[in-house]
Amino acid sequence: MTDVLSTVLQEQLHKRYGAQAPVAGGVANPTLELLLRHRTVRRFLPGEISESELAVIVAAAQSASTSANFQFTSVVVVDDPALRARLAELAGGQQLINDAAVFLVWLADWSRNIELARANGHTIEATEYLDSALSSVIDVTLSAQNAATAAESLGYGITFVGALRNKIDAVIEALGLPEHTFPVYGLAIGIPDPADPADIKPRYGQSVVVHRNTYTPPAAEDLADYLDRINTYYREQELPEDWVKNRLAGRISTKESLHGRQGIRNTFNRQGFPLK
Amino acid sequence: MTDVLSTVLQEQLHKRYGAQAPVAGGVANPTLELLLRHRTVRRFLPGEISESELAVIVAAAQSASTSANFQFTSVVVVDDPALRARLAELAGGQQLINDAAVFLVWLADWSRNIELARANGHTIEATEYLDSALSSVIDVTLSAQNAATAAESLGYGITFVGALRNKIDAVIEALGLPEHTFPVYGLAIGIPDPADPADIKPRYGQSVVVHRNTYTPPAAEDLADYLDRINTYYREQELPEDWVKNRLAGRISTKESLHGRQGIRNTFNRQGFPLK
Repeated sequence: MTDVLSTVLQEQLHKRYGAQAPVAGGVANPTLELLLRHRTVRRFLPGEISESELAVIVAAAQSASTSANFQFTSVVVVDDPALRARLAELAGGQQLINDAAVFLVWLADWSRNIELARANGHTIEATEYLDSALSSVIDVTLSAQNAATAAESLGYGITFVGALRNKIDAVIEALGLPEHTFPVYGLAIGIPDPADPADIKPRYGQSVVVHRNTYTPPAAEDLADYLDRINTYYREQELPEDWVKNRLAGRISTKESLHGRQGIRNTFNRQGFPLK
Repeated sequence: MTDVLSTVLQEQLHKRYGAQAPVAGGVANPTLELLLRHRTVRRFLPGEISESELAVIVAAAQSASTSANFQFTSVVVVDDPALRARLAELAGGQQLINDAAVFLVWLADWSRNIELARANGHTIEATEYLDSALSSVIDVTLSAQNAATAAESLGYGITFVGALRNKIDAVIEALGLPEHTFPVYGLAIGIPDPADPADIKPRYGQSVVVHRNTYTPPAAEDLADYLDRINTYYREQELPEDWVKNRLAGRISTKESLHGRQGIRNTFNRQGFPLK
């Protein structure tokens, strides 16, 4: 059993890293296999998720670490079809939001803690600073990744939808979000359509991302190795090659490539986060 | 086997939520049990982690979702004892940084993608906006939570160390971090000391954090139920009770309660993130 898992894990490492794959050396368990197997699923078959499954997914989210036990995570379960359609439209026409078994919008939520502190006569000042907003975004993201892992352990596929921030003011209005909350992204959970071609995607080699004690810029040949692997992946998926030109540059060259997200600072301010 | 897991999971839900625990109704698997079992471990026994274990933990981190495959995650493995001691001091005297089997500092890292785009003749403008910095912090946090889960699946205990942001400029200097990188937090991974008393910690009930289609402020009795459960937990741990007064208010009442983090906006700017 462990031998089989070991072999699977080593194959997964090979898909991520190519010839640079580290040797797992017998390190293996079902959770590692699940984490390394992750791929984004953008096509879902019809199907619903049970209330118990959803409750356990949320419990997994809430079980993640949270800064000082502040628990900034709130989550909006969107099951109204008209509201799903509206969010799909706001995210630039993402059909997967309509098709998912469940669609969750994750909020960085300071509101209840602020209310509790105020109700007990305390002043509130720290929340005006950037670190407080950042801290709440980190908190909800630790939670959301646990939710993703929990959903995948139940056989579902997932996709995070950052494009909800493209028209964030309209999202806030559609969900009726109060002051001191901020929608960070959506998470679509659904039954994977076997026709979805996405596979385990190549990542930068560990020599690029791992540093020992001090930061070391990546070697040119390690970056070249990655571009070769990711471009091969896109070619095999029959998608446009040249990751730098067609993917990276298209998203960072101009402020327009942010598709509206260049305005989120104003939205934070309006939601009660001055970001000092 | 599934019956045993089911029973364990239901007990875990009871520890998180008390009488408000949802019914898992047979939903159970080893990964869910692992996620729901999480507790922060702050006391470690001596011991090292193998290179294969570390490589698989990093692979799990890199297997998480990443916005547009941008892979903003970098991680500094701190194994130099003097550097560990320096970081422990900067984080306010956290001995666990010295004692951990491995101490990782997670970076939101735009540097290599910017270099790749520049080297191919593209302009860079989008990175000047708040959303770009936020996006990279989200990316690294999805990764770091996967690393935490992977480490726990191997029997280690973990603690995130947000206090690295208290004296962030000194952390940047100690690790030699270049422009377009930002240290978000540390992650201590180690062998749990059985004497560490921390248990599964109560969280807000799901009625507080879960919303259906539109946001619903929490009911006063649900907040009161939580304060009762968390204060009972602290009493049983022989720690000061009154979560609102002793924990929450102490961290948000004044800007001084940020312990230096009120300056991180300037640090972002100096690291090449204007946060427009």
